[in-house]
Amino acid sequence: MLPEPVREQIEHDLKNWHKGMSIMELSHRIPEVMAMTAQTSQDLRDLLHIPSNFKILFMQGGARTQFSAIPLNLLGENTDQKTASYLLTGHWSKQAMNEAQRYAQLNTFSDPSQIQQIPNAGYLHCTDNETIDGVELPQLPDSNIPLVIDASSSILSKPIDFKKVGLVYAATQKNMGIAGLTVVIVREDFIGHAHPLTPTMLNYKAMMEFDSMVNTPPVFCWYVTGLVLKWVKSQGGISAIEKQVAEKASLLYEAIDNSDYYRNQVDPMYRSKMNIPFNLPSMELEQTFLKEAEGANLFYLKGHKVLGGIRASIYNAMPLEGVKALVDFMKHFSQKYPL
Amino acid sequence: MLPEPVREQIEHDLKNWHKGMSIMELSHRIPEVMAMTAQTSQDLRDLLHIPSNFKILFMQGGARTQFSAIPLNLLGENTDQKTASYLLTGHWSKQAMNEAQRYAQLNTFSDPSQIQQIPNAGYLHCTDNETIDGVELPQLPDSNIPLVIDASSSILSKPIDFKKVGLVYAATQKNMGIAGLTVVIVREDFIGHAHPLTPTMLNYKAMMEFDSMVNTPPVFCWYVTGLVLKWVKSQGGISAIEKQVAEKASLLYEAIDNSDYYRNQVDPMYRSKMNIPFNLPSMELEQTFLKEAEGANLFYLKGHKVLGGIRASIYNAMPLEGVKALVDFMKHFSQKYPL
Repeated sequence: MLPEPVREQIEHDLKNWHKGMSIMELSHRIPEVMAMTAQTSQDLRDLLHIPSNFKILFMQGGARTQFSAIPLNLLGENTDQKTASYLLTGHWSKQAMNEAQRYAQLNTFSDPSQIQQIPNAGYLHCTDNETIDGVELPQLPDSNIPLVIDASSSILSKPIDFKKVGLVYAATQKNMGIAGLTVVIVREDFIGHAHPLTPTMLNYKAMMEFDSMVNTPPVFCWYVTGLVLKWVKSQGGISAIEKQVAEKASLLYEAIDNSDYYRNQVDPMYRSKMNIPFNLPSMELEQTFLKEAEGANLFYLKGHKVLGGIRASIYNAMPLEGVKALVDFMKHFSQKYPL
Repeated sequence: MLPEPVREQIEHDLKNWHKGMSIMELSHRIPEVMAMTAQTSQDLRDLLHIPSNFKILFMQGGARTQFSAIPLNLLGENTDQKTASYLLTGHWSKQAMNEAQRYAQLNTFSDPSQIQQIPNAGYLHCTDNETIDGVELPQLPDSNIPLVIDASSSILSKPIDFKKVGLVYAATQKNMGIAGLTVVIVREDFIGHAHPLTPTMLNYKAMMEFDSMVNTPPVFCWYVTGLVLKWVKSQGGISAIEKQVAEKASLLYEAIDNSDYYRNQVDPMYRSKMNIPFNLPSMELEQTFLKEAEGANLFYLKGHKVLGGIRASIYNAMPLEGVKALVDFMKHFSQKYPL
């Protein structure tokens, strides 16, 4: 979902963003659109304190396109001789690994404590938050090699320690706008070593040189991301969002842990603050739960088809009231259908 | 620009497309969104009479991503031994060629009459309409090899003869929606021969197998394209649009040709019906023209930086009244600042 003020602004601008036209209809080459895209980049830099030796690229194709673009750009021409490391914490990190192994030799790890000294690798890839498994890294791992972070589902919910990082990427549709745009924040020295078969549209150097406008970018998606960043600023920035996120997640985990009815099996140290999967005593009760939840205006709680069960996605735009309504519903449901 | 009924529908749906949410906020996995994407595909098939042995893919990255995806998918593993042919008619066909020559040996042609018998080539690439040069193919060329058509700026303005074609692609932001989505219409036997380094997100086989949902697609862009297709149907389909387009273009070319003041230097046989570049007697007058046009609410008439001069882009959504207003302005301007 989008924050309500963002949706209202979109509605307001639809009739007249500039000269009686909607921004959907305007060329990316006109000064007003160029100013919007530049401001969006600057707002992201301000909010996340992105150091000046990192470039911010706005790309297309979602995080999954980066699964290919990262090894293609970072491992250079002789991918056969280069190694990348992947920390596997759930569904999405495995997907990233599957794509990367087409381009490079990989080491894989499943325990963050193993990755402090990795020999001979170009980067260590981590999925910060696993949306399906409900697993989140409590902090960026310490490693001797630069981290490449998929932050699609956690960006803007906490600070990023750029001292540990070579590249951060995030599709915008979870915490930063709508589907269609991907932000890539990449250290300058990682740019310029692409495999010669890298499509130009996936090439960080080309994207950098043309200010992310190698071709017509998805202007409307970029604009929505700009509005979301302004909303984050209005909330008090990342530290304020981080507090909201912690409060919402605590409320829901407490409701689960204080009951014998609901179960979340993730190690408390690695529990996600964004996606909280849980189970009821039986699959039948889960079906009833989903059905009655809709009656209470609580939608889209079905777990991912890979895992089943229930999943509450409580991204930044979800208000505390939404989580409270869910917790109330859970309490009533467990009383209505006791063990 | 978008057709006015499309903009109105977007505004209407913003508050409540489904269950009180905007389509921007909904998952691509819910049945209502899946139904919308399937209907959009079917409407495109109906409108263009796309044969059943062609698949319709909805991809990301714009036409320029297809500049790479086409040789990667169509020429197979041993690109060194395969040849592709490119018909060069202006800026965009040259850009497509520049990208493709990184993947394959190319033959290039600049005269459509030369391409009837091309030996040993996988496909012949043509840019149907050159937006910068104002050049359009009056019909698809006759060739012994299948055509690959960049139809980004002319799709839905005329029928496509699929007997001549192996693949048609079009970014949606000219005649079919907003920036962020690319339609690829590809003959089944062209699918499944991708180079092994093709990124999965650029692989037609993967896109086909997952109904263009290998990852989260740009749902909002897809929805806008669906609305535009419904609008085309409401106008009477492609043949009705073709008549509108011919009428608008004739009006503007006549105003140019019947004056000694305005000049368009494209061979009348190859004149574009979508983008009409023209010059005034001097660059000073062109500057004055652009300035005074804005005063008359005629915006974005500046020629592309590559060519300069004036350019009127009269895509499908531009109403006849808009062209009439431009022609009237041109008449008054030439009287106000005579030769």
